[in-house]
Amino acid sequence: MKLLSVGTVAFDALETPFGKRDKIVGGSCTYISLSASYFLDSLGLVSVVGEDFPDEMINLLKDKNIDLDGLQIKKGEKTFFWSGRYHNDMNSRDTLDTQLNVLENFDPIIPNSFKTPDYLMLGNLVPALQLQVLDRLEKRPKLVVLDTMNLWMDVAMDDLKKVIARTDLLTINDEEARQLSGEYSLRKAARKIIEMGPKYLIIKKGEHGALLFHGENIFYVPALPLEEVFDPTGAGDTFAGGFIGYLASTDDTSFENMKRAVVIGSAMASFCVEKFGSERIENLSQTEINDRISQFKKLTDFSLDLALA
Amino acid sequence: MKLLSVGTVAFDALETPFGKRDKIVGGSCTYISLSASYFLDSLGLVSVVGEDFPDEMINLLKDKNIDLDGLQIKKGEKTFFWSGRYHNDMNSRDTLDTQLNVLENFDPIIPNSFKTPDYLMLGNLVPALQLQVLDRLEKRPKLVVLDTMNLWMDVAMDDLKKVIARTDLLTINDEEARQLSGEYSLRKAARKIIEMGPKYLIIKKGEHGALLFHGENIFYVPALPLEEVFDPTGAGDTFAGGFIGYLASTDDTSFENMKRAVVIGSAMASFCVEKFGSERIENLSQTEINDRISQFKKLTDFSLDLALA
Repeated sequence: MKLLSVGTVAFDALETPFGKRDKIVGGSCTYISLSASYFLDSLGLVSVVGEDFPDEMINLLKDKNIDLDGLQIKKGEKTFFWSGRYHNDMNSRDTLDTQLNVLENFDPIIPNSFKTPDYLMLGNLVPALQLQVLDRLEKRPKLVVLDTMNLWMDVAMDDLKKVIARTDLLTINDEEARQLSGEYSLRKAARKIIEMGPKYLIIKKGEHGALLFHGENIFYVPALPLEEVFDPTGAGDTFAGGFIGYLASTDDTSFENMKRAVVIGSAMASFCVEKFGSERIENLSQTEINDRISQFKKLTDFSLDLALA
Repeated sequence: MKLLSVGTVAFDALETPFGKRDKIVGGSCTYISLSASYFLDSLGLVSVVGEDFPDEMINLLKDKNIDLDGLQIKKGEKTFFWSGRYHNDMNSRDTLDTQLNVLENFDPIIPNSFKTPDYLMLGNLVPALQLQVLDRLEKRPKLVVLDTMNLWMDVAMDDLKKVIARTDLLTINDEEARQLSGEYSLRKAARKIIEMGPKYLIIKKGEHGALLFHGENIFYVPALPLEEVFDPTGAGDTFAGGFIGYLASTDDTSFENMKRAVVIGSAMASFCVEKFGSERIENLSQTEINDRISQFKKLTDFSLDLALA
């Protein structure tokens, strides 16, 4: 298996300035897998849902060649539920409700055929479970990518630091990078976080783009200015899915290729926010994706052969 | 004369999380001219100061080949004074004090030798005075660039719209673009603002970079992540000075060359914020500037020859 993703599969209720949805499928693993599936034929996910989870979505994921042998469906139980409301600027949101349901006793069982993935994407989840996943693999993947959030910095920092120490690349947003490092300057924050273990760090800045740090190298992909950001839910996971999906498909973890992967992740995220939930990334064409990637190239490309007079 | 800049020359009192300065030279025209002087030998400024203005700064500007024939020095009067305090995130600030002094009755007299500039930079100033400057020129410059601020949108919108209608390129920050257009999406904001007259729009996003809009073309230069932003005062004017200084020196207003000019403006601004006031941009070497521009190239450069499988 080229890529294994572990994280949540959930129901979300969302409210943005453009409308609301009462119960749509969400969760870190859903977005990661959908996004990665455009680049890979060999990927699986480990997660858990209740028996209320719709067959329709199961079938959609299967159609994308996502191996669901690691998706536990708990009889008589309910799927994890999260509800949130975005502020007018779309950069911040309030959590209205969280019902752990099946997540409360989630044991991330890894099917035997999933135990030697080349690439591992640990989507946002309780750090203790992420550690369990790492322990249960039969060999260390070529690259372990971790996504997490401020909540775990507040309530499970010790476990989180243990996972971070065992990952190759961490993706977090700018506020989380500041919280984790205690540094306001993202450049200083990056240095401190890289000292915690990961060789690479991606700082996601939402509408302002994403930064990749490795040693003293920095690469910055601005976000494509869009007519409208409809719903930012899942954008970070969609980014991560595109990023690792492309890396796994090319099987090249050089900094040059990671740069391309950051662009591709950004392109996938730019689709995600154009509609509610995962709607926009469920049926993208190859041409749409290639066109969008070209737009990112055009956005920052300039020629430089100047010398000051 | 290749470039004429009109705006304020001032005293600033500044407080940032890194320290304070009680009385240093500032003002839009100071930063614009200093920054542009690295690219041009033929530039002049029109502004006004009191007799309290230091000879030292006059001599510095002259050393940079900035023609000061348009700088009025008012006997017995005091230089415009502004005082501000930056918040911890450096993205917002409070004005603590504003003393107009010589600005109160400023009549922007254009010396005869200044009346046919190739390029005109209207730095931040009362819109009515910016209009006067346009009326007093003998021929229309090849390119008129306007910088302004939210204050004028609040108190002088009619005049401001008249100036905007007569400029080729407007530079404002993201919040100002939203205020001026009534649109949150910067892409929509840009479209509305371009309908007001200017063919080009630059939206400055501080630590997140700058966007150039022209028709449906968009170019985005992210800001270089710095170890520390010491004092953001003058960064926007320094950007504008580098931008128009480079354009005027190359005398090429194609979109491709404007992209380069935005990079060069960004590079100059990245120096400005590294020290208090104009300190850092008073004595830059050619090598420092070229190295910094190369860092911007490296920051966003990636190769792309992919097609989706």
